[in-house]
Amino acid sequence: MARTAVAEGKRYVISMDVGGTFTKLALVDPAGEVRQRHEEPSEHQIAGAEVPQYVVGIVERMLQDSGLTRDEVVGVCVGIPGVIDHRTDVIISCPNLTNWEGMPLAKWVGERLGLPTYIEKDANEAALGERWIGAGRGIDDLVCFTLGTGIGTGIILNGELYRGSIGGAGEIGHIIVDKDGPLCTCGNPGCLESFASARAIAGTARNAAASGEPTAMLELAGGDINSITAATVFAAARAGDHLAARIASEAVEYLGVGVASIVNVFNPAMVILGGGIAQAGDQILIPVRQIVRQRARRLLAEHVQIVLATLGNDAGVIGGAYLVFKEEGVALQR
Amino acid sequence: MARTAVAEGKRYVISMDVGGTFTKLALVDPAGEVRQRHEEPSEHQIAGAEVPQYVVGIVERMLQDSGLTRDEVVGVCVGIPGVIDHRTDVIISCPNLTNWEGMPLAKWVGERLGLPTYIEKDANEAALGERWIGAGRGIDDLVCFTLGTGIGTGIILNGELYRGSIGGAGEIGHIIVDKDGPLCTCGNPGCLESFASARAIAGTARNAAASGEPTAMLELAGGDINSITAATVFAAARAGDHLAARIASEAVEYLGVGVASIVNVFNPAMVILGGGIAQAGDQILIPVRQIVRQRARRLLAEHVQIVLATLGNDAGVIGGAYLVFKEEGVALQR
Repeated sequence: MARTAVAEGKRYVISMDVGGTFTKLALVDPAGEVRQRHEEPSEHQIAGAEVPQYVVGIVERMLQDSGLTRDEVVGVCVGIPGVIDHRTDVIISCPNLTNWEGMPLAKWVGERLGLPTYIEKDANEAALGERWIGAGRGIDDLVCFTLGTGIGTGIILNGELYRGSIGGAGEIGHIIVDKDGPLCTCGNPGCLESFASARAIAGTARNAAASGEPTAMLELAGGDINSITAATVFAAARAGDHLAARIASEAVEYLGVGVASIVNVFNPAMVILGGGIAQAGDQILIPVRQIVRQRARRLLAEHVQIVLATLGNDAGVIGGAYLVFKEEGVALQR
Repeated sequence: MARTAVAEGKRYVISMDVGGTFTKLALVDPAGEVRQRHEEPSEHQIAGAEVPQYVVGIVERMLQDSGLTRDEVVGVCVGIPGVIDHRTDVIISCPNLTNWEGMPLAKWVGERLGLPTYIEKDANEAALGERWIGAGRGIDDLVCFTLGTGIGTGIILNGELYRGSIGGAGEIGHIIVDKDGPLCTCGNPGCLESFASARAIAGTARNAAASGEPTAMLELAGGDINSITAATVFAAARAGDHLAARIASEAVEYLGVGVASIVNVFNPAMVILGGGIAQAGDQILIPVRQIVRQRARRLLAEHVQIVLATLGNDAGVIGGAYLVFKEEGVALQR
């Protein structure tokens, strides 16, 4: 983005989302608009001691590319797929990023950058983003699902992010929907993730395809069983493939059961479905709504809106920016 | 209680818990002590229009019995086994009390009594009571289970009661632990309650006894199958009865799975087990702790204390009193 696209006198947040595969950066303004973006593969060979410098390096490159001065940057948010103990600001669990655990990353990055720096769980950021300018505008009690490789959520209660006593709330992928079900990646049987995550759906589809059941999924995946993803399953189901439709339908049934449980637990005004699997749109939205209507308490089911996320992949970086603007007392323009 | 037992200059709350079977009243002081109590069968033949007067009558009798003047009473709390829409203060669901739905009861009772009057869900009151002077003192994030005929919870997050968007949060008895499980009283299959409530445990035990399986439960119940309760099951299990031990163990396993899910969702600092079934003490506490350690996320399981409630049947009326003292700005003495 050229310097001219950044309005004079405005202030911005550099918001970064570090995923297991890609790292995304965005320059976000107080209206929630992404003014510049950058994506690169996440670096996996970093020693623990070099992690803060790695983050600083990426942020400084964006600073340079944007032509912004430090004065024009309100602060930085680093979103990670992990748990941050908000009493100490230390990353206490982050299985997908090697060597990031045990670090007070926001402090160390902030000191090196000379800018206010925050760190937040990616699913929490997505919930904040959707509530700010996405599907959840004006809603005080909502649960925002990120349906991806795993299943995470961000929880907003009484208008505030709820992080749990040590920052670990929202592990809804690990509610147990079948006590003797298949093993989850967490080591336990029958978690929601073991039925309804992108990883589980792809696994079921690959096994079925490998067993020789005829299916259009194989062709959609270019003939390579290992290239079948959850997206392949939903695409094939849309195209009328029976096997894919059965796999999608079973996964979505479990997802609906999980959402119904969450509705009974939180009595939210809204449930937002986001993340990769939510790209399937009505293929998940309509059955999940039906199952919640059937299986949650009537009063609570009648009261909850179930909707798709609207910010797509930007929800996280936008929510991270919201957090920084709010904490730093910058007036939001939306 | 004689007039003299009520200290001069002190102020009290009349706290009432209306259950499906019994109505309990307590006069509670700002230290959380119950200074007088009264219990009577709940009246079931009241027309809707007479409900407020019925409540007023019971409170006025306690006022008279205590010898207190109105000035000495800070206010009244009415606890009910139902959902109150806290935006309108109307009871929106109360299946166990005929004709109580649709009423702004606190307003109507308060006007007739001339005293500040509040209404609260009984499970929420229990959570407030346990946090005030029971097992949860000083804990800001806790889930307090009331394990009775059904399974309810009160949820305290960031030090505040969380009621949900319309007052219906905490219906944890209806999280789905087996999507194709036995029918619950709510009409849906596989809710936690259909495995682990007192009703479910007694039902399973009665069926087993009726099928002729030899068991000490029958003797403990005076030879009458229909007198077998959940308490009978735990007592027989303690005495070494194999059938009872198997039934208790399966119910407690489901309870543990439900608690593990709740730990993953809320990341609470504490889970409190209260209500009738919690009388079984270590028979439920020890296995639930084990199951949570095995099946919740490691980090969250390590962090949560799982304990028995300490206030017994008084938790509700004490929590109701806490609510009134706090709302009316009376300094608590504990």
